[in-house]
Amino acid sequence: MHQYDYDLFVIGGGSGGVRSARLVGAMGKRVAIAEEYRFGGTCVIRGCVPKKLMVYASQYPEHFEDASGYGWTVKETQFDWSRFLAAKDKEIARLEGLYRKGLEGAGVELIESRAEITGPHSVRLVNGGREVTAERIVIAVGGTPNPHEALPGYEFCISSNEAFHLEALPRSILIAGGGYIAVEFANIFHGLGVDTTLIYRGAEILSRFDQDMRKGLHEAMVEKGIRIICQDHIASVSKSATGQLNVETLASQQIVVEQVMLALGRDPNTKGLGLKAAGVAVNERGAIIVDDYSRTNVPSIFALGDVTDRVQLTPVAIHEAMCFVESEFRGNPTKPDHDLIATAVFSQPEIGTVGLSEEAASKKFPEIEVYRAQFRPMKATLSGRGEKMIMKLIVNAADRKVVGAHILGHDAGEMAQLLGIVLKAGCTKNDFDRTMAVHPTAAEELVTMYQPSYRIRNGERA
Amino acid sequence: MHQYDYDLFVIGGGSGGVRSARLVGAMGKRVAIAEEYRFGGTCVIRGCVPKKLMVYASQYPEHFEDASGYGWTVKETQFDWSRFLAAKDKEIARLEGLYRKGLEGAGVELIESRAEITGPHSVRLVNGGREVTAERIVIAVGGTPNPHEALPGYEFCISSNEAFHLEALPRSILIAGGGYIAVEFANIFHGLGVDTTLIYRGAEILSRFDQDMRKGLHEAMVEKGIRIICQDHIASVSKSATGQLNVETLASQQIVVEQVMLALGRDPNTKGLGLKAAGVAVNERGAIIVDDYSRTNVPSIFALGDVTDRVQLTPVAIHEAMCFVESEFRGNPTKPDHDLIATAVFSQPEIGTVGLSEEAASKKFPEIEVYRAQFRPMKATLSGRGEKMIMKLIVNAADRKVVGAHILGHDAGEMAQLLGIVLKAGCTKNDFDRTMAVHPTAAEELVTMYQPSYRIRNGERA
Repeated sequence: MHQYDYDLFVIGGGSGGVRSARLVGAMGKRVAIAEEYRFGGTCVIRGCVPKKLMVYASQYPEHFEDASGYGWTVKETQFDWSRFLAAKDKEIARLEGLYRKGLEGAGVELIESRAEITGPHSVRLVNGGREVTAERIVIAVGGTPNPHEALPGYEFCISSNEAFHLEALPRSILIAGGGYIAVEFANIFHGLGVDTTLIYRGAEILSRFDQDMRKGLHEAMVEKGIRIICQDHIASVSKSATGQLNVETLASQQIVVEQVMLALGRDPNTKGLGLKAAGVAVNERGAIIVDDYSRTNVPSIFALGDVTDRVQLTPVAIHEAMCFVESEFRGNPTKPDHDLIATAVFSQPEIGTVGLSEEAASKKFPEIEVYRAQFRPMKATLSGRGEKMIMKLIVNAADRKVVGAHILGHDAGEMAQLLGIVLKAGCTKNDFDRTMAVHPTAAEELVTMYQPSYRIRNGERA
Repeated sequence: MHQYDYDLFVIGGGSGGVRSARLVGAMGKRVAIAEEYRFGGTCVIRGCVPKKLMVYASQYPEHFEDASGYGWTVKETQFDWSRFLAAKDKEIARLEGLYRKGLEGAGVELIESRAEITGPHSVRLVNGGREVTAERIVIAVGGTPNPHEALPGYEFCISSNEAFHLEALPRSILIAGGGYIAVEFANIFHGLGVDTTLIYRGAEILSRFDQDMRKGLHEAMVEKGIRIICQDHIASVSKSATGQLNVETLASQQIVVEQVMLALGRDPNTKGLGLKAAGVAVNERGAIIVDDYSRTNVPSIFALGDVTDRVQLTPVAIHEAMCFVESEFRGNPTKPDHDLIATAVFSQPEIGTVGLSEEAASKKFPEIEVYRAQFRPMKATLSGRGEKMIMKLIVNAADRKVVGAHILGHDAGEMAQLLGIVLKAGCTKNDFDRTMAVHPTAAEELVTMYQPSYRIRNGERA
């Protein structure tokens, strides 16, 4: 006889939940996973994956335009949003199927229900009302777009969730926010022909990114025809008789658009989850507080991924899940490592980045060397596109370690992945200098910047 | 009074020659550079740069096709070869201008003439017949496509030199060779709508590359519609009355095409250079023999780049030039480092590679771990394109060092550049495992292959 119905009960079928359930299930343990919407979570269902498919779709007009400089004539082109949506949804359904299959193959019980915690070892399944018990519970319910309910007229606005399923493309859109979701969607909608405006209360989009990336992307987006309003914010949204949305900003600008999208951060999905009943502590944002091993204050309850508000990224949730399994089921206590995480913004141009920005590094180290290249990528020479690529390396002068690497331009995400290895391994600028260029590539700039563009000593440019 | 007219006389205005002349000129030395054709050399004038521009041009039909899966309808498209050539030639002229400007800015005298060596310190300028003297002479005259004069009908064939300036695109082409030039041009011509056949005497294209890259590219090319004939070779070419070329192969196949391109290796450009008169030693292929510091057997004469037949790559020639300048003009003897050179083949799909193939590594090390992923890139899910990406890491089991990395697929060249840093720095598989994925990218596969696909012990798959 087992004391509990399950060895592990996972709430939430996203990246972190699925990985932990699958790994533990494959060990022969009795595992169930509850998901109230669709398996795959934010990443697969309404995040990374459909977003990147929309990026691809939105890039074709530039391909069509660029072709001309290469001797091509492209007569007439047309975009069919419904056809794209159907294709995207089919692919998402395929991926969801793979997630389900992976879980089933590992002997995990799939429960299509919202699950709420009722105690340290018990969970109530909302569909049917059954209560089940488990030795360990993993909360991996993720996050959800902040609806910004304090905004008059917020009910007329969409979030990224809805952006993936609009009935029709609007003719114009106003996107509020300056984070990566806001800029990615601004580029997507613009690419698909939507008249696009971005409004952000901060001084510059993408706070905490390297200043050159922020300015470089801002300028590139403006050059494409995206309007960017900084240091202002939506004050109210109202709907006119014709269905248009009238937006008033704090600086008293009037903006009339067909759609308003709010991308003002994401909140942990903990409302009504029963955390109070079970005594699980949360922080002021509602995120579950965990220790270095993803343990909540209740010894049998763990939390992974976005709901813990550590680093909201798919690979991080997966990594946390793998560390949890290693720690709790394989007797090998393993802390997730959140240091030096490379990331990409799938804006157009892309940003790929790892490590410290110039600003952060100059505060941390007495002297840094900054290597900076700005150039026109080869493809743009014939296409005539005015885009520029920016590459930056930030080096700690004391030991020549590369402490930051930042790229704006095509394939920046792919490059960031590999720069992640380089920085994680603690490579120095000398390792870059020793490396032969691959010609003609864009990345070769990274190994041919032999002299620093400038130095910063004690926070001052030398 | 100076003993010689120049401190340095450089023969050949390509990558190695220009870099050495420019650097030494900028030091205030008296430098001249002679070029008989156009400044920029193979790379800029009839190699890497125009080749990559042709690759871009040839990729548009796939963009147009792929767009359909993303909801786009592309009605009519047309390619105008002359318009492309004009645009390409304009860009090449611009680059040549930059090379000239760089030399002039460094105070280098540009001499538009063929130059032949007449002694350890003397050079004859063929245009005008003037003889000049120099303390040091650098030979950087590069290479040229092997014309394969033993082939009956070789005079009806073109080489890559002519491929950049065809009056019109042929309807069909046969390309002989299995090296990177042959496969790159096969993909270019096919992409531009030319019925393309590749013939290669070896068992598989791209000898010395990793077997998975060779097979993977071969299959991908065939799937696109390129015919590949291995283990056969052109026996003769004759021209019919209609202007078609009739090719007979060693295996008695008859192939009728409009154009035959020979890509059967490149020869050092040393014919008639006066090497014998000056006593400069060459090897059996006509390549100039140099020591570790690019010194010929004549103490005042040096040779750089393709003419030395070490590693025929632009960045290598530039690196050799920089080492030469460091050694001879800055009192800092520096050997060029030819170890672990990352390279790319701009085939479609691309290959990016650094370090040892599985085959070579399994001969060198008692035990290797092979990590191999083959997958459909995300973009292909909606485009429906049947392409697959292959990624491989070869790890020496004894110390876990990554000794080879091989990628077939989009952006493989960009990735190879960064993998070059990783391998050059001596990173281990543990460094890959420690690195967080960037999602969704293709490169993330490189950091999420946690278990070896297989091992090879003492040359046998375990």
